[in-house]
Amino acid sequence: MKNTSILLVSCPDTKGVVASVADFVYRHNGNILHADEHADEGSNLFLMRVEFDPAGFDLAPDEFGRHFAAVAERFQMRWRLAQSSYRPKMVILVSRYDHCLADLLYRHRSGELACDIPFIISNHPDNLAIAEFYGIQYETIEVSKDAKHKAEMEILQLVNHAQADFLVLARYMQILSNEFVEHFPQRIINIHHSFLPAFVGAKPYHQAFARGVKLIGATSHYVTEVLDDGPIIEQDVVRISHRDSLDDLLQKGRDLEKVVLSRAVRWHVQNRILLYGSKTVVFE
Amino acid sequence: MKNTSILLVSCPDTKGVVASVADFVYRHNGNILHADEHADEGSNLFLMRVEFDPAGFDLAPDEFGRHFAAVAERFQMRWRLAQSSYRPKMVILVSRYDHCLADLLYRHRSGELACDIPFIISNHPDNLAIAEFYGIQYETIEVSKDAKHKAEMEILQLVNHAQADFLVLARYMQILSNEFVEHFPQRIINIHHSFLPAFVGAKPYHQAFARGVKLIGATSHYVTEVLDDGPIIEQDVVRISHRDSLDDLLQKGRDLEKVVLSRAVRWHVQNRILLYGSKTVVFE
Amino acid sequence: MKNTSILLVSCPDTKGVVASVADFVYRHNGNILHADEHADEGSNLFLMRVEFDPAGFDLAPDEFGRHFAAVAERFQMRWRLAQSSYRPKMVILVSRYDHCLADLLYRHRSGELACDIPFIISNHPDNLAIAEFYGIQYETIEVSKDAKHKAEMEILQLVNHAQADFLVLARYMQILSNEFVEHFPQRIINIHHSFLPAFVGAKPYHQAFARGVKLIGATSHYVTEVLDDGPIIEQDVVRISHRDSLDDLLQKGRDLEKVVLSRAVRWHVQNRILLYGSKTVVFE
Amino acid sequence: MKNTSILLVSCPDTKGVVASVADFVYRHNGNILHADEHADEGSNLFLMRVEFDPAGFDLAPDEFGRHFAAVAERFQMRWRLAQSSYRPKMVILVSRYDHCLADLLYRHRSGELACDIPFIISNHPDNLAIAEFYGIQYETIEVSKDAKHKAEMEILQLVNHAQADFLVLARYMQILSNEFVEHFPQRIINIHHSFLPAFVGAKPYHQAFARGVKLIGATSHYVTEVLDDGPIIEQDVVRISHRDSLDDLLQKGRDLEKVVLSRAVRWHVQNRILLYGSKTVVFE
Repeated sequence: MKNTSILLVSCPDTKGVVASVADFVYRHNGNILHADEHADEGSNLFLMRVEFDPAGFDLAPDEFGRHFAAVAERFQMRWRLAQSSYRPKMVILVSRYDHCLADLLYRHRSGELACDIPFIISNHPDNLAIAEFYGIQYETIEVSKDAKHKAEMEILQLVNHAQADFLVLARYMQILSNEFVEHFPQRIINIHHSFLPAFVGAKPYHQAFARGVKLIGATSHYVTEVLDDGPIIEQDVVRISHRDSLDDLLQKGRDLEKVVLSRAVRWHVQNRILLYGSKTVVFE
Repeated sequence: MKNTSILLVSCPDTKGVVASVADFVYRHNGNILHADEHADEGSNLFLMRVEFDPAGFDLAPDEFGRHFAAVAERFQMRWRLAQSSYRPKMVILVSRYDHCLADLLYRHRSGELACDIPFIISNHPDNLAIAEFYGIQYETIEVSKDAKHKAEMEILQLVNHAQADFLVLARYMQILSNEFVEHFPQRIINIHHSFLPAFVGAKPYHQAFARGVKLIGATSHYVTEVLDDGPIIEQDVVRISHRDSLDDLLQKGRDLEKVVLSRAVRWHVQNRILLYGSKTVVFE
Repeated sequence: MKNTSILLVSCPDTKGVVASVADFVYRHNGNILHADEHADEGSNLFLMRVEFDPAGFDLAPDEFGRHFAAVAERFQMRWRLAQSSYRPKMVILVSRYDHCLADLLYRHRSGELACDIPFIISNHPDNLAIAEFYGIQYETIEVSKDAKHKAEMEILQLVNHAQADFLVLARYMQILSNEFVEHFPQRIINIHHSFLPAFVGAKPYHQAFARGVKLIGATSHYVTEVLDDGPIIEQDVVRISHRDSLDDLLQKGRDLEKVVLSRAVRWHVQNRILLYGSKTVVFE
Repeated sequence: MKNTSILLVSCPDTKGVVASVADFVYRHNGNILHADEHADEGSNLFLMRVEFDPAGFDLAPDEFGRHFAAVAERFQMRWRLAQSSYRPKMVILVSRYDHCLADLLYRHRSGELACDIPFIISNHPDNLAIAEFYGIQYETIEVSKDAKHKAEMEILQLVNHAQADFLVLARYMQILSNEFVEHFPQRIINIHHSFLPAFVGAKPYHQAFARGVKLIGATSHYVTEVLDDGPIIEQDVVRISHRDSLDDLLQKGRDLEKVVLSRAVRWHVQNRILLYGSKTVVFE
């Protein structure tokens, strides 16, 4: 996979944004490989993702900002430049259920997820063996009722020390405090085992079973201060029937959770997700 | 399509139910074509649908009960015998949106729905033309704010006079009173344009758009006294993305609503749906 | 829906295409609303769809070509400019099965398909009533075995006289001659009732039933000289089981066919489909 | 999971089959938990799966046949009795691609697949590490062009010696000889990475990419003497678009293959699959 440069832009929707950005890339000798954009009518926001070939591009990444400033200011852009060759550092948090963890580690090793995993954090020692099999460091940080804050501080220290770029809650069964979450805006990805906003909170499969729905779902989203309410990245569903027991729901759900979470992580790693308000655009 | 007899049974889950029912049918010279059943562990309820060939069966439908009584009593059964040749009478209620109505009428004429439609009731005259095209009587019963009760009484009178078997709310935008609903237990089918229990109430597509979900859904259910809370018969979803405007959601949703409602109506007509608690078993 | 201009471009993949097109639109005071593109690595082809707001654009549609020529020549573009306000003329060909016809006419009247339908052509008189209901002219052109050529000549004359833009085969059960097809490159849309390339040719549901597949499909494609081999526009599938008889397959299939064909027609009408080799890009 | 007895029956479709079987179970004091059946009109075949609680059943498994003989003979039944507590022995054959292998081993350890795995056979040493992680023996049997027969004989010896019940080809890239296949009727499950019967043979994703389909699929089937032509157990598809490269197809396909193969294996282990002609009934 050759390296590409990815420019992410959001700004008020005005004439000339595409032309100015495309022209900037062209003048500096970059070749646009993909360009996606979305004009959100409600918020009058324009969102754009431009992927270009940096071979021949006459600006080094650290020079880009200085030269792009004129364009950015003219259109009041918020922007970010990423290199596909940079492997972001992902820390996985997990409790006892290991299906999402095992799936992420398998995909990581097989090359699907172009990120590094400095370590896994868990409040239980159960998943040490699989971490070792994949050669990933495993940190157990127990979370006792009275010392939640202390545990979060330990996690924070580890994460910061590793300069991790984002966190993935791969069925981490502890609710993080707002204080903790605020450190990682748009940088914590959770998997919730329901089709949100249906069945918020605990035991969603039990809720779904009791309600008698005909499909069950899973939702990956960025974590915000309100439980299960952050911007949705991806969702999917699978059909169930009266023949499915609660155990069958859990089993079918696990397959969903793995796929939905891994898509969200891949898109995040590939810089494909832009936020506007409480929603996401995924430039697939 | 040759005529078949359908026996629907629910009773406490005990040994010998299948054997006794199958034996009864066999002793009276019926040939079982399909037999479906479900044992619900939570409620210890046993549900069963037996479809048999009445050719050669030595009991007339009106004699069945007298002979079956011994079996029914022994197992404390609630039961019902239906003939596939009987065409139930379905009254459709509709407001202005005509997609579900048009779809039901088309399927009815093409032979997919083995029922009769004595008339359509609407609170608006808008859909008269399509009713006429399909040769179905169309009754306009306006619903003014102050005279809701009066309108419901008119509907009730019409429905009872026609000896209708069940009602379908094909995007009927009036909320029916509990008093009205109580007349038709498990006999009113509604289509709600969301994946229930997400987005209960008004304007679910607007709610879905605002929340930023990645799939939208539709749900058909029996109407009970609590809004959008009745037993779910069928659900389905379709994928959306940021490229879909609210209008696109409405358009994609219409295709869902048609398919989901028509499945529910067909299963109801074919005596495939059994209730247990607030859930349905659909013996497909 | 306000009018937009749509520029469709295909050319060899070289640096500066996006910038030059975006810059051209901008210099003439157009506002780009959407821009989609695809670089096909295999064929080194670059495909692009730019939708811009013509309000304020300082070139009339008939002047566009003269001014755009320099850009087009420099990049060896094949290009086309369309106005969303132009309603293309669609002729529907149908035999006896009416589900796709009824669906297209319903969607047309409800505003989903922004085209005009000068008339419907059929080799049977059966579907006259529904055409009349929707106020569309209905031409019966019988196709006898010995006079296929004559029938096609009549169709050709009608279509040309009406200056139709494209044809839709809504379950038209006659195979068109190569001679006829050649008159309408990328301008005949067919619905085939299987998941192509599985089950080419006659009676695909029978073939699917015999093979014991677990899903059945439908495929809409442009018609080329090789039967069922043209560029695929859209496909979808639905799950079946051993409980589904051949009749059930036909019924489930009808729902698929309607949805798949109507998507293809809508995308065609909205100028969203570009061909490259024997494949399509659909810029949704 | 408590033990259940599963009786699988196929016989000509005649009156009294359900009654006789249900009565037999009841007379011997078994409690029917589930009963599924299918009458195939084309072949006049009746297929049945009865799952009953053996607690209190007054026949030991090895006595069952002697007592059931009268019923079986009367209806010309082919039948089989299985115990859910019996863990069939599954041998996995794999080449280099490890995604299906890793998925099966994970599911096996997590309890989803109630079978034993005496060993894995591969023509490459590549997947030894994952086998070791899961504590499964790994046999490398190289297949050289000139010594295919010899390799198959080695496999046969290993499989027979272990008294394996069935084989799973988890992306095993060697075509097995008819001679080998004949030893295992309905006892070899393969995963083919296309929506069969489309794209039979080698490199189906390449074929799909070249054809420009809009969905890709995977198919699990029993292996017979004709390549990719055996009875289909399960299929599924996933949507692709022009944005997906050939590599993306492979990646999306891997997720499909894992899910489709694991469903087939689970149903096989649970004695849910009956064959009739070249088709399967899956009593889910």
